[in-house]
Parts: sequence; C-alpha cells; structure tokens
Amino acid sequence: MTNLGPVSADLMIHASWIVTAADDQVVHKNACLVIAEGKIIDIADSHSASTRYKTSSVLNLPGHALMPGLINIHGHAAMALFRGIADDLSLHTWLEQYIWPMESKWVSEQFVYQGTQLAIAEMISSGTTCFADMYFFPDASARAATEAGIRVQLASPVIDFPNPWSSSAEDAIKKTSRLHDEWRHNTLVSTAFGPHAPYSLSDEPLKKIVMLSELLDIPVHMHIHETSFEVEDALRTSGQRPLARLSDLGLLSPRLVCVHATQLTDDEIALLSSTGVTVAHCPESNLKLASGFCPVDKLTRAGVNVGLGTDGAASNNDLDMFSEMRTAALLAKAVSGDARALPAYKALQMATIHGARALGLDRLTGTLEPGKHADVIAVKLDELNSVPVHNPVSQLVYSTKSSQVKHVWVNGRQLLDNGELTTLNKQTLLETAQQWQQSLETLK
Amino acid sequence: MTNLGPVSADLMIHASWIVTAADDQVVHKNACLVIAEGKIIDIADSHSASTRYKTSSVLNLPGHALMPGLINIHGHAAMALFRGIADDLSLHTWLEQYIWPMESKWVSEQFVYQGTQLAIAEMISSGTTCFADMYFFPDASARAATEAGIRVQLASPVIDFPNPWSSSAEDAIKKTSRLHDEWRHNTLVSTAFGPHAPYSLSDEPLKKIVMLSELLDIPVHMHIHETSFEVEDALRTSGQRPLARLSDLGLLSPRLVCVHATQLTDDEIALLSSTGVTVAHCPESNLKLASGFCPVDKLTRAGVNVGLGTDGAASNNDLDMFSEMRTAALLAKAVSGDARALPAYKALQMATIHGARALGLDRLTGTLEPGKHADVIAVKLDELNSVPVHNPVSQLVYSTKSSQVKHVWVNGRQLLDNGELTTLNKQTLLETAQQWQQSLETLK
Repeated sequence: MTNLGPVSADLMIHASWIVTAADDQVVHKNACLVIAEGKIIDIADSHSASTRYKTSSVLNLPGHALMPGLINIHGHAAMALFRGIADDLSLHTWLEQYIWPMESKWVSEQFVYQGTQLAIAEMISSGTTCFADMYFFPDASARAATEAGIRVQLASPVIDFPNPWSSSAEDAIKKTSRLHDEWRHNTLVSTAFGPHAPYSLSDEPLKKIVMLSELLDIPVHMHIHETSFEVEDALRTSGQRPLARLSDLGLLSPRLVCVHATQLTDDEIALLSSTGVTVAHCPESNLKLASGFCPVDKLTRAGVNVGLGTDGAASNNDLDMFSEMRTAALLAKAVSGDARALPAYKALQMATIHGARALGLDRLTGTLEPGKHADVIAVKLDELNSVPVHNPVSQLVYSTKSSQVKHVWVNGRQLLDNGELTTLNKQTLLETAQQWQQSLETLK
Repeated sequence: MTNLGPVSADLMIHASWIVTAADDQVVHKNACLVIAEGKIIDIADSHSASTRYKTSSVLNLPGHALMPGLINIHGHAAMALFRGIADDLSLHTWLEQYIWPMESKWVSEQFVYQGTQLAIAEMISSGTTCFADMYFFPDASARAATEAGIRVQLASPVIDFPNPWSSSAEDAIKKTSRLHDEWRHNTLVSTAFGPHAPYSLSDEPLKKIVMLSELLDIPVHMHIHETSFEVEDALRTSGQRPLARLSDLGLLSPRLVCVHATQLTDDEIALLSSTGVTVAHCPESNLKLASGFCPVDKLTRAGVNVGLGTDGAASNNDLDMFSEMRTAALLAKAVSGDARALPAYKALQMATIHGARALGLDRLTGTLEPGKHADVIAVKLDELNSVPVHNPVSQLVYSTKSSQVKHVWVNGRQLLDNGELTTLNKQTLLETAQQWQQSLETLK
C-alpha cells in the first residue's frame, strides 16, 4: 500500500465540540473541521486530522463549539433603520400609520443599501451566514450582501399598489425575473418571488407568480395568516380563508415559504404537510405585534418543514438568530403545553438545515458535512453564562448569547474574526445609522 | 448671595442618556449622574453639573445609557451549576426525577458558595445589581454576595421534608430567624422567608411564617400557582385552590411575593390586588417548563405590583435580566392579544423599581433619583444591534443584549469596569465550574 501523504487543505479549525446539525445528532468532541476550496472536506478527531491533512492555516479554538451558520429565512433587512421608531402597536396600526407612510417617504436605493449593510453587519456579528430578504430595491440588497460576503435569497416584494420600487404587481414581477437573470451565476445570491400577503395581492399576479416560480424553479415567500384579523377579514369579504384561496390558485407547493402562519386549523396543517409547504416561524415578531402563536409543535409533528426568521428589526427589534432560536424553543413548549416540545437539537436544526431546506439551499449549506460549503460559526462556550457545559447543544440553544459568536465563515471566507468584522467597517456603519436617525427625526 | 463654590462628589458619570425608571418617564439627554458616599446626589445636564460639582473621578460615556441596575426577584443562584443538565422536561418530571435527586446528592455549603459566586458573576456582567435568592445554605449565598458587593435578599427555603440544609420546616424557620439576626446590619443583605410551595408545606409552618414575617417585617417568597397541575391536584385532594388556602392562613399581604402565578382567575387577580401581594413573573422559566402564561397585563391593570425573575439557571438557562425583560414585554402582548400591553417603559420599571418594591427595598434602590443608593449600570447603545437610537428606552428593552452592559455600580462601588469584573476572578470561576461539570458527570 502506498502512503500518499497528507492531503492539502486551506483551513483546519480545531474546537472542543462540533455540532453538525445533521439528523444523527452526533456531537464531535475535540474535533477538527477541514476546509478546502470553500467547502468542508472532513470532520475528524483533532489528532488524526493533524496527520491526514496539511495546511498553513490552523485555528485552535478550545472552549468553542463549531456549528453551521444560522439561516434567517424571513426579514426586511433595510428596516433596521426604523428600529425602535414605532413600538407597542398592533400590526395594522403599525403598518398603516407608521411603517407604510415612512417607507413611502424615505425608502430609496440608498436607504436600502445602507440599511441592509447595517443589518448584515448585525447578522454576521451574531452568527447568521444566510438570510432571506423581502424588501424594495433588491438589487441594492444583493450588492450589500455580495460585498459583505454573506449568502442571501432575495424575495422581491410584489404588491398591488405602487411603492418606491415598483409601480404595480406586474412591474414587480418583471423586475424580479430580471433580477433572477442578473444574479443567477453568483454563488452567494439566489432569488425568489415575494408576494407580500393575500390581502395586498389580487389573483392575476399570484397566478403569474405560480407559473414563473415553476418555470424558474425558485421559491415564493409570502406573509400568510399572520393575524386573526387577516383571516377574519378575508372570510368576511370573500367567504374564504386566505390559505384556501391560495390553494385554489395553485400556490401551495414545496416552493412556498408561508411566513408567520399563526392562524391554522388542523385541516390547514394537514394541507401544508401534504403539499410540502415550509412555514417561516417568526416568534419574536409575532409576540411583539400580538399576532398570535404559530403552532410549531403541531406543524413539526405533521411533518411540515419549519424554518426560523427574525422578521424586520422594526418589529423585533433585532436580527439575532440565537435569541430567535431560544425564543422558538421556549415558546413551542408553552404553546403546546408540553415541555418536551421542540427540544434543543430540533430548535438548532430549525435555525440551520430546516431553514436551508426552505430556501432550496440544503444541498449547499445548513449542516457541517463534507461536500457542503463552509458556512460555519465558532461560539465561545467557556463564558460565565454557559458553564458548566454539561451539554453543548443545550448551552447553544438555551444559554448562549450571540455575543459569544467569535468567528464566522461563508464559503470558507472569514467574515468575523474574533468578533471583528472583516468585510464591513463597523464605525462607518454606526455613523451612517446616526445620520439616518437625525434625518428621520428632523423631517418626520 | 454668597457663592459657596462647587460641591464635592465621589464620582460623576456623563452619559448620552439617563433613564431613571421613575414614573415621570423623563429621559435626560447628555446628562450627568453625581454620586457621593455611595448615593446619588444629583442628575443634571452635563454642562451645569460640571460647574456645580467637583471630583477627581469623572467618567465620560458617550453613546451609553445609564439606568438603574436590574433587580432579579426570583432565582436559585447556586443552581447555575446544574445549567443544561436536564432540559425539555415538565416541571414535575424535572423536579422529581432530576433536580431533587441531584440536589440531595450534591448540594453542600461549598456547592452553594461556588455556584452562587458563578451566578453572581453572570448577574453582575449582565447588569443585575440586586437579586432575591431562594436556596439552601443561605449563609453561603450571603457570603458570596457580600464578598462580590452585590445586593441580595435571602429567601431561605422552608419545606416540610428534610433536605441538605434543614431537617424540617421548623428547623428551616429557626435557621431563617437566626440568619435575619446575623445579617440585619449589613447594608447589602436583607432576609425573607421562602416557603417553597403550597404542595410542599403543611399549615403549621405557614402560620408560623405569617406571624414571624409580621414580627420581623420581612417578605415571604413562595412558588404559587406555578402550573395547572398544582392547582388541580390541590382541588382534588383538598377541595381548595392553593391561593384560597393561603388566604385563609393569612399569608396574602404586601409582604408576600407570589412567584409564577400562571393560573389565576379574575377573582384571584382581584384578591391579589386588594391584599397588596406582589407577583414575581418568571416568563422564560414558565415557557421552558410549559407551566402556563402569567396574565401580566391583567395584573398590572388591576394594580398588582409585578416584578421580574429569571428563576434558576437550570430552568431558563441563564440569569440574564435584559433577556427576561424583553421576553416579558413581548409575551405580555401575545398573551393579552394586545400589542400595546406592557410597553417598553413599563417593562423597564418591572425589571427595576417594581422589583425593588416587591423586596421592600424601593426606598433604597430601583430608580436613579437623588437620595437612593447608587445602584447603576451603563449600557453601550452605539452598537450594531441598537442603532439608530430613535428611542433609547425602546432600544434598552427590545434590542439590547446584556453584553452591552459595560459598567456596574452597587452602593457607588464599581463591580464591572468596561466589561471586567472587579470583585470576582472570572478565570477561577470558569475553572471551578469545569471541576463541578466533571464531578457531576463522573459520579451521576
């Protein structure tokens, strides 16, 4: 037998724990993640990895856990600039009296670019490596994301009425198709249709979206059954619950990401399951807007894929997926009345691989497994609020703060190095936010 | 008029915002907190304070908000050593099959001292300046707290059955009276009775506690109506709901801190209000153990004082009052179905002055007002997840992470300096926790 010698790698990361988020629930202790050409090529115990691979770049992270980067499947990144400007209001008051008027006054390509940069900086710093974004001027978001090196799915907003980005639903659909064409070869960017909500879209554009999303094989993100008001209003005016209408229009399929879903009958849960729809669960936004409780335990038992989203920072008010994962795990128990619901490992999968599946990106990312892109985060667990580490998965879900995220890689490229952003300038972003604060205050 | 010249102070802290937590909801901008002999002597705009006071110690904190230290009114500090050892279980399974057996095996004076030190370090680091603690060996907790310089209320556990600290309820009551006597002259320490729960105590010791708490004028902390099981079980075996029994026994008074209270009828809410009982709301623990939802909005509307607690780190799994405050604010909206419920400022008061009132300490602490002890924290708001600062109170409640707490003072003594503990050694605490992790793992 010939000894071929050690294999070349670009980066080897040794850590106390590697949590892969794969279904086998294996946690590797004192192990090494080996990365080459932007991909994971091996996970092995630290000792044997050191003999099997050679590289000039080795990182030793005792007391840290490596895990897949978090995947935020629903948000409106640029709204970070509206953070805290209108709180303690119901969804419809908040939208109609505050958010929509401010958006029509302030939202521009520059607003979106700078707001999205701020949001991306917050997301990278807190361990998110991929986000789906439903906001105006998605080109600007794509530019901000690719410059920062983070993975993004652009769910371009389609809405009947004119807005700063599109004059009509028809116009938004055209722009989305063009966007898809322009970014299709970028490894970080994917596209989707983002029809806003059943109550803001008529049937014709929805039919067109069904057709085009099949043709392009891209996801459709839509706010659905966010509040009881939405469902009751639709029943009153049309005699039909929104999901029934969307089902009639052919929208329910594995390509659909049904965002919020706080109002579901058992029959509707069965329908989501049989049609392969994903639910984007946004627990903190749902709590803050008093929208209702998404029945996460029932959904997962019914086999529905559920991913996690923060929603925009104007209704959360942060983009912290560690906090969101923890809230999801805690809330699922209370809502189902069963403390065994959504146990720690399942919550961790919801924030990673189940999110990747929702976006159609699960072959690329979402777990730490050989062949996948190296979308990885390192979390320091030897901190006062995480010790003793009786169970690293429990600590990651129930007691870790996102400030313990020390390193972040996307496609093997390091975006956070010991807590410092490598592709964005924090000071500049803080100053830009301060300028927006002054503009919005002076002229609102 | 004679000019008497500037007044001497020990410390002047200039900050961008001072949030006092007083009922007037005033937020001072570009202001200075002036401290002398451990107390707040003034809050003034930065410019005039600089002419009116002189001191050798001036701290300039642009971009920071000063606010009262957070007050955690319910916990079991030493249980930090059990963090993450048993999750995703109902309260009764968790207690009976995991926590109680582990406690009887492991809990000693040393366990409590070291576990409480770890908890205190986590609490100081995350902005808590005062905590109530219900755990065995309260002497050890008092020692840990006074050495660290944090304010504590010892709610010594009273329970019918023998435990590592007391042989009987009678014994625990005696020990509590002695504890009160020993610590009564320490400015950081106060005492209380901690009868565990209605289901773990017979009438006789409860009657004695009523008498002694009146005599000594000290609070009584008790887990009450934590789960529906507790209430239904009491109804089944005695024909009475626990609160009715406690009312008959004379326990309901402004001295009582009713911990959890997830199961309340409207009549019971009226009873709590008319008797002046405080509720200690522990939202994250209630969620995690699927105990039920405390009707916070109804309680506060009925005029019931509500404070906040983390509960022990074994059912939370951290001691982070920023997270708890945020969860309380979000959850109150969802539970009441009204996004206007528990607005940001009220949540901030719940985590500060309302907690102080619960512990009978509101004349000493809980707000930033002249005459009160200087229990103060400085929170850095110019961070990616907190900008733009359209509203500092909203940012403190809805988007601040406890890692943004940079400075902490209790009685004017600095316990956290730019994120570093001044009275405890972090490295030693991490190593001790690691030793406990190994002990518990090896021998469990």
